[in-house]
Amino acid sequence: LTQKSNRLYALIMAGGRGTRFWPRSRKAHPKQVLPILSEASLIQETVERLCRLIPADQIFVITSESLRPELLRQLPGIPRQQIVAEPAARNTAPCIGLGAHLIRQRDSQALMGVFPADHAVTRTPRFVATLRRAFKAAASGDLVVVGIPPRWPETGYGYLEFPKDAATGNGAIPVKRFREKPDAATAKRFVKAGNYFWNSGMFFWRAEVFLDALNHHMPFTALQLESMRPLRSKGFERDLAEFYPLCENVSVDYGVMEKADNVTGVVADDFGWSDVGSWQAVYELSRKDKLSNAARTGGLLPLDARGNYVDAHKPVALIGVDDLVVVDTPDALLVTRRSEAHRVGELVKLLEARKREELL
Amino acid sequence: LTQKSNRLYALIMAGGRGTRFWPRSRKAHPKQVLPILSEASLIQETVERLCRLIPADQIFVITSESLRPELLRQLPGIPRQQIVAEPAARNTAPCIGLGAHLIRQRDSQALMGVFPADHAVTRTPRFVATLRRAFKAAASGDLVVVGIPPRWPETGYGYLEFPKDAATGNGAIPVKRFREKPDAATAKRFVKAGNYFWNSGMFFWRAEVFLDALNHHMPFTALQLESMRPLRSKGFERDLAEFYPLCENVSVDYGVMEKADNVTGVVADDFGWSDVGSWQAVYELSRKDKLSNAARTGGLLPLDARGNYVDAHKPVALIGVDDLVVVDTPDALLVTRRSEAHRVGELVKLLEARKREELL
Repeated sequence: LTQKSNRLYALIMAGGRGTRFWPRSRKAHPKQVLPILSEASLIQETVERLCRLIPADQIFVITSESLRPELLRQLPGIPRQQIVAEPAARNTAPCIGLGAHLIRQRDSQALMGVFPADHAVTRTPRFVATLRRAFKAAASGDLVVVGIPPRWPETGYGYLEFPKDAATGNGAIPVKRFREKPDAATAKRFVKAGNYFWNSGMFFWRAEVFLDALNHHMPFTALQLESMRPLRSKGFERDLAEFYPLCENVSVDYGVMEKADNVTGVVADDFGWSDVGSWQAVYELSRKDKLSNAARTGGLLPLDARGNYVDAHKPVALIGVDDLVVVDTPDALLVTRRSEAHRVGELVKLLEARKREELL
Repeated sequence: LTQKSNRLYALIMAGGRGTRFWPRSRKAHPKQVLPILSEASLIQETVERLCRLIPADQIFVITSESLRPELLRQLPGIPRQQIVAEPAARNTAPCIGLGAHLIRQRDSQALMGVFPADHAVTRTPRFVATLRRAFKAAASGDLVVVGIPPRWPETGYGYLEFPKDAATGNGAIPVKRFREKPDAATAKRFVKAGNYFWNSGMFFWRAEVFLDALNHHMPFTALQLESMRPLRSKGFERDLAEFYPLCENVSVDYGVMEKADNVTGVVADDFGWSDVGSWQAVYELSRKDKLSNAARTGGLLPLDARGNYVDAHKPVALIGVDDLVVVDTPDALLVTRRSEAHRVGELVKLLEARKREELL
């Protein structure tokens, strides 16, 4: 593969709602469009990383209708037509199927990678190295998934099970099973066993190969996608609105990957991956001061305070408090413990139940 | 004493800066002018309480020049000239001396009470009953101070020591000694002994009697005050600016009360007194919900949160946090523990040292 192969394409899935960064994230501004870790948003960082290997005009983004205008603003380097809005949310199998279709229309020999819009990577060169290996494996005709060596027994991720005696080197290893989010005891067993890896949600294949698999395992959905006229044609949007909502609401893991027999895994280089799943994850990714406080803005006024994360646009004084998360926005304020930050989603559900639309 | 005796006057001391309610309190808006416990400010509540017994036009207020405009706005019922600005802060002895002068000019037989502007009382009828007893004792020619039965071994207050065998009934008891803020062990001993009472900072006397005492114990200061032309005369303000700054910078406790031999104490009825010395005190005075959270505004969104105090003008979500103080203002936010809330003053000193004028 050359530095920027003209065969390499990327599909970025950017439809997620992301309630776990409330009050910073809202319906109109979900996680992927927020500048959480730097001045750039997570999706801008994702695109920038991918551009090390893939030309910007070979990147496709699938998002929701409400988010498309914001993405057009944030991603001026990507051709407008390649930022596509789903007429309805249908989970990852139809989304990836649609992306594979659009990419194969452009290049029948295309090698494509599928990427979540809202993950973080701290070491881009190692990330690019992993991508090279994954594309290489995909070129041979496999459905390739990237596995992350687990750093703790996380119960919030799916796992890939490799054969017990597989040599987890640079090459592709057959995936024995996809494992859904485990309970705590199972997660511990997975990590101890050594042949279980976090499912990164990054996939690599020839567009053709994935569409064959989709045709085989989800023929009804494949049929809807095939019924659409091409991306730049006049009828595309009308067809998308007509056929896409008919697709089955199924994840790619469940609908395709667990059933196909040509699935292999590539073990990720240690590129500092995070799914940025909570304010706690943001804290972990942030630079800390001497007392382990991290602040998104410069206004922190700590007095005997340690291990806190602060995101605010005004000075915040912390006196005698440890391990808190404080997130201030013009119309809502969150204070929680770092260890409880994963419960922000519960709060958002509560607000939905109470019809507090102005806060959602 | 009749219901609203035309002999009864009040002097409210309202010059305090009050840094302990930052970020709500600022130089331009110290504690006494803030609506901390209700929709009314502490000084408005003080005036309203006093008006049960004392006509509004017999109330005098001494404050700082910077605060006078705000007090004129907040206290429209008090004659404008009776809200007097000190040209310089000179502690309580000169302030009270000035007030006694102004009141005696108005009525040579006046009985006056001295009141801090920024204390809280939860049971006004009992407060009024205590005032009646204190004024009665003052009519006989004593310097009367109100003692509060101590509810805990507070180290932040001064104490009054009564004779060990004194009958602490309704009448006035000779005060044996004024005790300055004790250390923790001494405070415990005081409370256990039973003949020590918190010094409320409320004093009662005939204006004449106090001015005699001032003349005796602080003759230089008394002389400055006597040099001034009367309140409503043309020269008053010029004289005030000339003579007041020459007064000794001394507290009334130290300068007069500890030295005089006609000092008696009246034990307060249980009127729910608080000096509202910190956010913790505000929490204690506030109504709590089932989980002991108290919020100044209605926007509290608690999830598994207990014992917190929140003052904010927007919704505040608390997840899994206990016993915090959260105070949000448009340009600064404070998060601390209730048990650490007394340290807000330290923070303000830090801001002063760093010349963060915009936050002071």
